[in-house]
Amino acid sequence: MPSEFRYRRRVQFHETDLAGLVHFSWFFRYMEEAEHAMWREAGLSIHPADAEIYWLRLAASFEFHGALRFEDEFDVRLKVTERTKKTMRYTCVLEKGDAKIATGAMTIACVRKRPDQSMKATDIPAEIASRFPVHHGS
Amino acid sequence: MPSEFRYRRRVQFHETDLAGLVHFSWFFRYMEEAEHAMWREAGLSIHPADAEIYWLRLAASFEFHGALRFEDEFDVRLKVTERTKKTMRYTCVLEKGDAKIATGAMTIACVRKRPDQSMKATDIPAEIASRFPVHHGS
Amino acid sequence: MPSEFRYRRRVQFHETDLAGLVHFSWFFRYMEEAEHAMWREAGLSIHPADAEIYWLRLAASFEFHGALRFEDEFDVRLKVTERTKKTMRYTCVLEKGDAKIATGAMTIACVRKRPDQSMKATDIPAEIASRFPVHHGS
Amino acid sequence: MPSEFRYRRRVQFHETDLAGLVHFSWFFRYMEEAEHAMWREAGLSIHPADAEIYWLRLAASFEFHGALRFEDEFDVRLKVTERTKKTMRYTCVLEKGDAKIATGAMTIACVRKRPDQSMKATDIPAEIASRFPVHHGS
Repeated sequence: MPSEFRYRRRVQFHETDLAGLVHFSWFFRYMEEAEHAMWREAGLSIHPADAEIYWLRLAASFEFHGALRFEDEFDVRLKVTERTKKTMRYTCVLEKGDAKIATGAMTIACVRKRPDQSMKATDIPAEIASRFPVHHGS
Repeated sequence: MPSEFRYRRRVQFHETDLAGLVHFSWFFRYMEEAEHAMWREAGLSIHPADAEIYWLRLAASFEFHGALRFEDEFDVRLKVTERTKKTMRYTCVLEKGDAKIATGAMTIACVRKRPDQSMKATDIPAEIASRFPVHHGS
Repeated sequence: MPSEFRYRRRVQFHETDLAGLVHFSWFFRYMEEAEHAMWREAGLSIHPADAEIYWLRLAASFEFHGALRFEDEFDVRLKVTERTKKTMRYTCVLEKGDAKIATGAMTIACVRKRPDQSMKATDIPAEIASRFPVHHGS
Repeated sequence: MPSEFRYRRRVQFHETDLAGLVHFSWFFRYMEEAEHAMWREAGLSIHPADAEIYWLRLAASFEFHGALRFEDEFDVRLKVTERTKKTMRYTCVLEKGDAKIATGAMTIACVRKRPDQSMKATDIPAEIASRFPVHHGS
């Protein structure tokens, strides 16, 4: 994998709100779409049909510096900035051309479903961890 | 069950788009929310935790006569207007006060999951069918 | 414009529901995304920043023949099948490879905002109508 | 206003994803729905039809401790925990019965639209600030 993954996206009409801007909840979906595209780029699916492990969100955050409007094209630049035995943390920057629109972060945990459908943290499989080298510094 | 079910809802900010109106895709979710509330009113869940049957959408449609805006309160008046052995059809009217905003319809089919996760149509269980009498005429 | 417009899309995680399939409300958004991409292909935006006219949805419908799952790639094949002085109708087919997943239709009306923000139907500008030839037959 | 505002909500089907849980992006919408309900309780709308000021999101975050499933009922307990001349910060706890599901925060800024539609920070009107006393401590 390159040092960071770049995901290009265009704002859709249904993602805007009455203020004429993309609703802030969409930034979290953009970050997740970039995450899943990064997994595909690494030859993986974050949720294959026969999944035995799941990835729960432990935390998610965004700071907003600018706005996105209908039909804007933008990039999500995503990288893994921390990994423990059971968790992984991404940070991302959303950019429209040269303008920094938002910076986000998300921590996910590797879990297994117990027979009662509750979730239990489990170690990240080595073959997955090895695909996502951790990037330190900015 | 009364002759029709009434579901009251308020428009949320994130449901509006840049035209200042509720995005049309939301009407289909309003109709479905009303459907599930009607099932709860009948003492059922359309998808209990231990579900053995599922309900697929075969068709959905809306005609729009007016618009909804942020914080508008409205009602979905929903009824079952047709039922076959394996399917059920709802029609609904969305109203804001005296104004008719939209009329919708939705046909659903009762299915079971095969071991390979594909779906197969199956008879609607009698204890479910009996809860939803069919209303003829307008 | 070619006789129909093809819009390729991949299913995102947040578009699925607990049944493991794309929620049916998303098909309406897919159809609209294809519509707006078709307008861009024709050198237009359906909602430019200085818009004087708007496009309201009068009707929208889908029939569902199959299902879409996480990460599926699919095409929306969209065409204009009817146009009156003030309205336009699209029909579309959603396909995943050779499988027909759904067929949809949508009628939109050209409107202007009155000073009180209410909407009034207006003629489709000739320079827009000319970009969208009507396709008859299937 | 009481020391905190409580907003009750039920999980809708379309808010779940293929893991069988509410998609994490929805928590941000739940927090915002609670915010707007708190404004209505204070006799205000965060976006009246003749709005001269807007409220932009500067930051939003959640930590997730548990999960929500279809038809779960939960509460968002929201309060204002910081206010500057131009910004306001909320924190919230999402609870299902006695279980703490998530804790969130959101910072918003009061802005005016310039004639070119760009946004400029502006002082929070006194009649709005006075409705939202700041709660210190936990």
